[in-house]
Amino acid sequence: MKWTTEEIMKMDKFKRINIINSITGIKPANLIGTRSRSGATNLAIFTSVFHMGSKPPFIGMLFRPDKDVRRHTLENIRETRQYTINHVNDQIIEQSHYTSAKFDAGVSEFEGCGFKEEYIEGFSAPFVQESKIKIGLTLEEEIPISLNDTIIVVGQIEHIIIEGNCLMENGYIDLENSQSVGVSGLNSYYSLNKKKDLPYARVEEMPDFKAR
Amino acid sequence: MKWTTEEIMKMDKFKRINIINSITGIKPANLIGTRSRSGATNLAIFTSVFHMGSKPPFIGMLFRPDKDVRRHTLENIRETRQYTINHVNDQIIEQSHYTSAKFDAGVSEFEGCGFKEEYIEGFSAPFVQESKIKIGLTLEEEIPISLNDTIIVVGQIEHIIIEGNCLMENGYIDLENSQSVGVSGLNSYYSLNKKKDLPYARVEEMPDFKAR
Repeated sequence: MKWTTEEIMKMDKFKRINIINSITGIKPANLIGTRSRSGATNLAIFTSVFHMGSKPPFIGMLFRPDKDVRRHTLENIRETRQYTINHVNDQIIEQSHYTSAKFDAGVSEFEGCGFKEEYIEGFSAPFVQESKIKIGLTLEEEIPISLNDTIIVVGQIEHIIIEGNCLMENGYIDLENSQSVGVSGLNSYYSLNKKKDLPYARVEEMPDFKAR
Repeated sequence: MKWTTEEIMKMDKFKRINIINSITGIKPANLIGTRSRSGATNLAIFTSVFHMGSKPPFIGMLFRPDKDVRRHTLENIRETRQYTINHVNDQIIEQSHYTSAKFDAGVSEFEGCGFKEEYIEGFSAPFVQESKIKIGLTLEEEIPISLNDTIIVVGQIEHIIIEGNCLMENGYIDLENSQSVGVSGLNSYYSLNKKKDLPYARVEEMPDFKAR
């Protein structure tokens, strides 16, 4: 099937949003933990976290426009400049998904969705105890995208917590052992199965693909 | 295991890069197809493609600094303002990986890695015939990130091509049927297995997680 943008924009609204939301491929499922200045914790699932650089170690995250709805995660990051990124794994998919429900003011998603808060000394944002891969970050910069009023929040990694068998000798995280999951669109969760570790790509060591 | 950034920065260079590169979780594997003004095609694997918005339909992509090395993909996008994003699937993992090798000038990665070019009338950038999910985009804006000299290229979707059984009734792409793959770091490829489709999250319809 082929469509032009014009044809896509004429589709049923939800179908259109679902196609556009899932067309880029798999997205990482992460829980963002924050705390307001007054001490209230917040936890929210995001699929917009992306690697931005290794030196310094920067991670980016896209936020939707904050015009109409209150964005507690973004407000808390602005207030305290600290936040955590925690991988969603196989065992906590449903709990994680429901952090996106609209809880009453004063109810933390940690409590509402059955997660335990975990802390590192000298760092105020809450980690998710049930997660096996966790990152603590400080806000480095907000980049407003005028094109569509989204905001890219760039954070610098301050702390990394990795559970036992998830880190390989060479520094790679084994996403099968960490049981980390991916998301397509907003609602479809996928488990990850390692297929292949390939070497750094050199022309001299390349298989002959032309012969296929 | 817990590390602070200070401890991470003291690690062996490659181990450090691998940890930072894989810590955000799964990334989508996509082939970017471009053509120079003089007609030479180029194909390169990227894991930095991300959803930016549905209306208008924008897709972002992070490019590393273009100081030292020539970035043919970015040069071609600047010249022609057109490019394609093509999902890597199970059958073309190795071919796709080797598009990152340094080919001699004048050798297209389409040829070198055994891919067939596919075209849509009125659109100059090449699609990858072997891919099941393909997007044709026009350059909307380049956003320079001064923090670390990376560049975010924002494209607007112009064409979408989806093979037979990959699109669900509601508009979701079934990444298991499309056999799309994910990447951890630079070299580890993962296949995707659908675990769960969850409904839009409403507090009233939520399971009782506290009782666990």
